[in-house]
Amino acid sequence: MSLNLQTHTEHFTNPLYLESGRILEPYDITYETYGTLNEDKSNVVVVCHALTGSHHAAGTYEDDNKPGWWNGLIGSKKAIDTDEYFVICANVIGSCFGSTGPMSPMHPHQQPYRYKFPVITVKDMVKAQRILFDRLDIHHVHAIVGGSMGGMQALQFAVHYPKFATKIIALATTYATQPWAIAFNKVAQEAILKDPDFKQGYYDPDVIKEQSLSGMAIGRMAGHLSFLSHESMQRKFGREYKSTDGLYELFGKFQVESYLEYNGYNFTKWFDPLTYLYITKAINIFDLARGFDSLQEALQKVQSEIYLISFSNDLLFRNYEMKELDNLLNEVGNKNHKYIDIKSDYGHDAFLVELDKFDNHIKEALHG
Amino acid sequence: MSLNLQTHTEHFTNPLYLESGRILEPYDITYETYGTLNEDKSNVVVVCHALTGSHHAAGTYEDDNKPGWWNGLIGSKKAIDTDEYFVICANVIGSCFGSTGPMSPMHPHQQPYRYKFPVITVKDMVKAQRILFDRLDIHHVHAIVGGSMGGMQALQFAVHYPKFATKIIALATTYATQPWAIAFNKVAQEAILKDPDFKQGYYDPDVIKEQSLSGMAIGRMAGHLSFLSHESMQRKFGREYKSTDGLYELFGKFQVESYLEYNGYNFTKWFDPLTYLYITKAINIFDLARGFDSLQEALQKVQSEIYLISFSNDLLFRNYEMKELDNLLNEVGNKNHKYIDIKSDYGHDAFLVELDKFDNHIKEALHG
Repeated sequence: MSLNLQTHTEHFTNPLYLESGRILEPYDITYETYGTLNEDKSNVVVVCHALTGSHHAAGTYEDDNKPGWWNGLIGSKKAIDTDEYFVICANVIGSCFGSTGPMSPMHPHQQPYRYKFPVITVKDMVKAQRILFDRLDIHHVHAIVGGSMGGMQALQFAVHYPKFATKIIALATTYATQPWAIAFNKVAQEAILKDPDFKQGYYDPDVIKEQSLSGMAIGRMAGHLSFLSHESMQRKFGREYKSTDGLYELFGKFQVESYLEYNGYNFTKWFDPLTYLYITKAINIFDLARGFDSLQEALQKVQSEIYLISFSNDLLFRNYEMKELDNLLNEVGNKNHKYIDIKSDYGHDAFLVELDKFDNHIKEALHG
Repeated sequence: MSLNLQTHTEHFTNPLYLESGRILEPYDITYETYGTLNEDKSNVVVVCHALTGSHHAAGTYEDDNKPGWWNGLIGSKKAIDTDEYFVICANVIGSCFGSTGPMSPMHPHQQPYRYKFPVITVKDMVKAQRILFDRLDIHHVHAIVGGSMGGMQALQFAVHYPKFATKIIALATTYATQPWAIAFNKVAQEAILKDPDFKQGYYDPDVIKEQSLSGMAIGRMAGHLSFLSHESMQRKFGREYKSTDGLYELFGKFQVESYLEYNGYNFTKWFDPLTYLYITKAINIFDLARGFDSLQEALQKVQSEIYLISFSNDLLFRNYEMKELDNLLNEVGNKNHKYIDIKSDYGHDAFLVELDKFDNHIKEALHG
């Protein structure tokens, strides 16, 4: 069967009341669907994306050759089987791929919000998706699946909309962002902010894509490091040196340096730097316990089945953070959760690249 | 007994033949000594410093309140007991604390070398120290001790001057820098290079100290991350937020962010950015096996007793890199080596901060 990939944008004129007390109004949400909604609307699987992800989770556009970021997981006969499920992935509020974000025009002007854009939280991202699903007349879903910031969204759904999903599957994530991850984001944010071409947020978005903003590139390099591991880098690059460079040239490069540079500068062509500041802010202040007296109290709200999948060598969100969450779920008497630690030496990136190590767990969770 | 701290600079007019084939001429080496040289010169302990370290390893200057970087280890009745040993620590060639480096005047002009300075290797650093010791009429030493880049120097001494030291003690280091560490250095280097105030190396060193070079600060933040660990950051900062900042302010800060910023910008007041490029280059291209057919062949040269001390949670130079070295020493039939892994959750920084966890091992090694 075909993937039945469809991309849509919904426009909302009602105010979105944000966790900060501020209001976003009006706003757009761009989303993608795969598969077909069944008659009783019981086959919906929501997929949530990470920091630099988008609604384009699966399939390939006609004019592009890059498949969606979880293409190996979503499709006909794949773990999230589009012959069976109707999959929805929305670009989060605050991002830069169609949903309203800091570089969107600020109503009623045509100028971008820039720093006038309110700080968005993971809870806000989830709330906006819930409103989108209401618009689509979907009031209950079979499952919500996501990794990294997508996993944060899945957990936030579980706590704040306890009756909304039958199953929550959160991968490579945490219950609250820890200082190591915040510190990596800090390096990236500082590099963006101190880049004179960033013009304190008043850059021209068209110009900036052309000129390869160095601050964003440096930030991406730091981010990249946090997604990888010693082992994956060792395997991929070792101490290979560029054959064209002299070992004793100050600017001679190891392959790993060349790779980081290429990826860093390439990133600036497709991701907006101000958006990077806003999304990393949302990640930094993510805390599932906010608004509750304790994380235990938050977890007592959960009614969905919870599947937690960590990766043994994840350096960004450590597997013991997921283990802690599992322990706390036990502590509050939750009977419907399962914790799985996947042996991997790919680091945080494992949730995007080592699909064969966990896709059966996703499949089982969806059918269990 | 007093520490008998003395600081000297020796000037050398003979050419220093570098590993790159280039020549450094003339050059200075600044060094510090503690304790007293005994009559038969049998009590010398050489201490080697790391990336941002200097010859000031112990004691406190009259006009300063900051003690040397290994003050807890070096002194009367301490692990490296200055009542017994005569300790020498030299600022490495290529650094910025008195020994000749890229911002030193290029003979016969008074202008700094800048990019005309040759790439320096760890082997060059060691060779220059060997020449210094010759000048001081010291032709054999009791021990050479160092951590991180200091450990690289200690190992390089062992391979290239096999009869020079009775004992080699290398901490928190490796036999060849791996891509993870190179990648961290890359982020820092790129941040320095892309800072417009760096002026492609043609900055005014006096001006740059005043204006807090953001590229160097960002680089230091990245470096700082690589020295720490999840656990040490968790313990030190948790998710503490600055009390004066709003959680939903885009530029509101966690304590960990504030700390990184403070340390990053403070670093620019005392460390030269061009020197940072050169020293990280030396670290990146460090490979004990260079010039040999294999690392095994290099290790067969070793005649000194070798003590390898790693830290379980070192994220920069992993403890298994030291373990590999230990295995290879076994493989080549070396009978005089010992490997100790110290349980620590301080990360790489442990060799500078958790002295009480390993100072007895240093003491034993020196007396064993």
